Amino acid sequence: MPFDTEDNTFLLPGPVKMHPRVTRAMAVPAVAHRGTEFAKQSQEMNRLLQQVFQTQAPVVTLTGSGTAGMEAAAVSLLKKSDKVVGIDNGKFGNRMCKLAAMYGDATILKAEWGQPVALDELERTLRTVKPKALFLTHNETSVGFTNPLQEIARLCREHDTLVVADVITSLGGIDVPVDKWGIDVAITGSQKALGVPAGLAYVSVSEKALSRMYKDQGFYLNLPKYVAKVAEGQTPYTPATHLYFATIEALKLLLQEGLENRFRKVRAQAEAVRGAVAAMGLELFPAEGYASDTVTAIKYPQGVDDSKFRKALKDTHSLIIAGGQDDVKGKIFRIGHMGTVSFVELAGGLAAIETELVRAGAKVNRGAWLAPFQDRMP
Amino acid sequence: MPFDTEDNTFLLPGPVKMHPRVTRAMAVPAVAHRGTEFAKQSQEMNRLLQQVFQTQAPVVTLTGSGTAGMEAAAVSLLKKSDKVVGIDNGKFGNRMCKLAAMYGDATILKAEWGQPVALDELERTLRTVKPKALFLTHNETSVGFTNPLQEIARLCREHDTLVVADVITSLGGIDVPVDKWGIDVAITGSQKALGVPAGLAYVSVSEKALSRMYKDQGFYLNLPKYVAKVAEGQTPYTPATHLYFATIEALKLLLQEGLENRFRKVRAQAEAVRGAVAAMGLELFPAEGYASDTVTAIKYPQGVDDSKFRKALKDTHSLIIAGGQDDVKGKIFRIGHMGTVSFVELAGGLAAIETELVRAGAKVNRGAWLAPFQDRMP
Repeated sequence: MPFDTEDNTFLLPGPVKMHPRVTRAMAVPAVAHRGTEFAKQSQEMNRLLQQVFQTQAPVVTLTGSGTAGMEAAAVSLLKKSDKVVGIDNGKFGNRMCKLAAMYGDATILKAEWGQPVALDELERTLRTVKPKALFLTHNETSVGFTNPLQEIARLCREHDTLVVADVITSLGGIDVPVDKWGIDVAITGSQKALGVPAGLAYVSVSEKALSRMYKDQGFYLNLPKYVAKVAEGQTPYTPATHLYFATIEALKLLLQEGLENRFRKVRAQAEAVRGAVAAMGLELFPAEGYASDTVTAIKYPQGVDDSKFRKALKDTHSLIIAGGQDDVKGKIFRIGHMGTVSFVELAGGLAAIETELVRAGAKVNRGAWLAPFQDRMP
Repeated sequence: MPFDTEDNTFLLPGPVKMHPRVTRAMAVPAVAHRGTEFAKQSQEMNRLLQQVFQTQAPVVTLTGSGTAGMEAAAVSLLKKSDKVVGIDNGKFGNRMCKLAAMYGDATILKAEWGQPVALDELERTLRTVKPKALFLTHNETSVGFTNPLQEIARLCREHDTLVVADVITSLGGIDVPVDKWGIDVAITGSQKALGVPAGLAYVSVSEKALSRMYKDQGFYLNLPKYVAKVAEGQTPYTPATHLYFATIEALKLLLQEGLENRFRKVRAQAEAVRGAVAAMGLELFPAEGYASDTVTAIKYPQGVDDSKFRKALKDTHSLIIAGGQDDVKGKIFRIGHMGTVSFVELAGGLAAIETELVRAGAKVNRGAWLAPFQDRMP
């Protein structure tokens, strides 16, 4: 039977399973995006976004992927003469660093993928370089790793360095209190923990960041232009109206559940999955203590072929999980648990994963994963 | 009764009325955008786009508004040392010129909004400046004006100048045979004549244009990166998957109708509307002979207040038309007929427009519009 793209178990670390109500919200006619009705809906969306970002700062929406949001931050904040520091310890941190280097005068702190950079080294760099901004990725989807953003932001504040954080796979799944932590520019994408179809980047801009932005750099990716129009529910360029409708629906669902409840659930799901894979005798990829709560990256046991394994999961079990990207392709597999999947879906997915690991000849402590998983079920 | 955003007569020059099947196509679960199924759907979309663009060249899709597509062309083709000529005779031509000047060494040919630039002046400029590219807007939605793109492209070919054309409100409504006319980069947006929700820019890239692009400029808006992945149905960054589904549905509807039939219908609708407004005693805004077939821009008769007039149309008749923008705000109103509306909707709209013009005290030859309109009905 061919794989059914509309009926399967979907455990990618983004895009994520969406509530049917979210996609149904897009099945509506065209709207006048400069009209008062759409402006009101945009303003409602902006308020919901501020709640989810836990910020009083404006949150602007760009039609584009998360990368468009990342580049908008670099375009708006950096000139070639501006010092900027980047943290490169995963695929997306690497992208943030590339953008920092493309638009500014960048110093890059590198660590192996899945390993943290030393905070004392970061502190020294901030002290000596005195950068205008630090660019980093909070949650490294590529390797299931989370950077200690709160501590990093604290160091930046001490050195008057703006914090520009890609929170694309953390915000909405992990607690990222933007104002409390002092994140000046936080960028997320629609298709991750928020459970909206891909196509929008949401970006919060602190007053301090705005005051240090260039008003004449870039055109489509110029953040000050978006900030100038956000209060009136408008955008400088035509917005993807129907993705706004999906966003409103998804954010309402999230806020009905409650941010605290959602974070608790995501944390428990992460612990359940980590407990299960440890019991199977498998190893996590990221450094101990830095495993992400929204995506678990697991090293393949000896002898398991990535593409055959995931093909079997897909063809035999209609289960979609992710492999590794770039440097870790074929070496890891990844399970997303960003808050829109259920424990039941994860448990079923783990049953299929164990089955196919065994069939591939891996040594697995059969059935051992179940009890630690169940211990974390609600 | 408050205006119903889901049940009204929608005659904007973009976004346009969409077939319900198009928006329903988005009410589906998340898909793995790096998976084979989505790649196949993307390839299907690309083939349909090539048919509508009438080109053998690759047509790439950016998640973003039409402006993102325009800027991508400038980012990818121009360095500060590259000569570029721009034609500025409307709001969007002005935007093309701004982008040309932001990234290249631009010479701008200016005319009043709604007036053509002299072709002999253009020829002289191409000969003396020897630009790498010409940037222009084909159809000026802002003033209901169409530039003679075929003739302009012919001049450019004679001077080995690349033609970069914003065809956002022409392609799919007016005949724009990209290969036959020799347009190197043609940019359109989803929400105009193609009848897809806003959020995607489709851009064709000729082999010659690709060979003259810079591979290392920009990041999100770097066209060579999109071209490199298009054949395999992939994108460099996460695409707005659900807008792809809508695009496939809308393009199938368009091609079922047939491009020739669609162009004929749009032309007839334009003639019907122009005949009707002339019979009412109203004047078109653009220069004689240059009126657009996808949007009619009409000068307000003495004494009619734009916002009161359009408010009455909206509140009393649930009819949405456009006013003027920027320099012509309050001076014109605009009716879209990009091919997704019907003659019946247009006739009804004109009845309401006449009614409200009369109520506003304008001198109108009452009822005179009907016969010339009906003469063009199918």
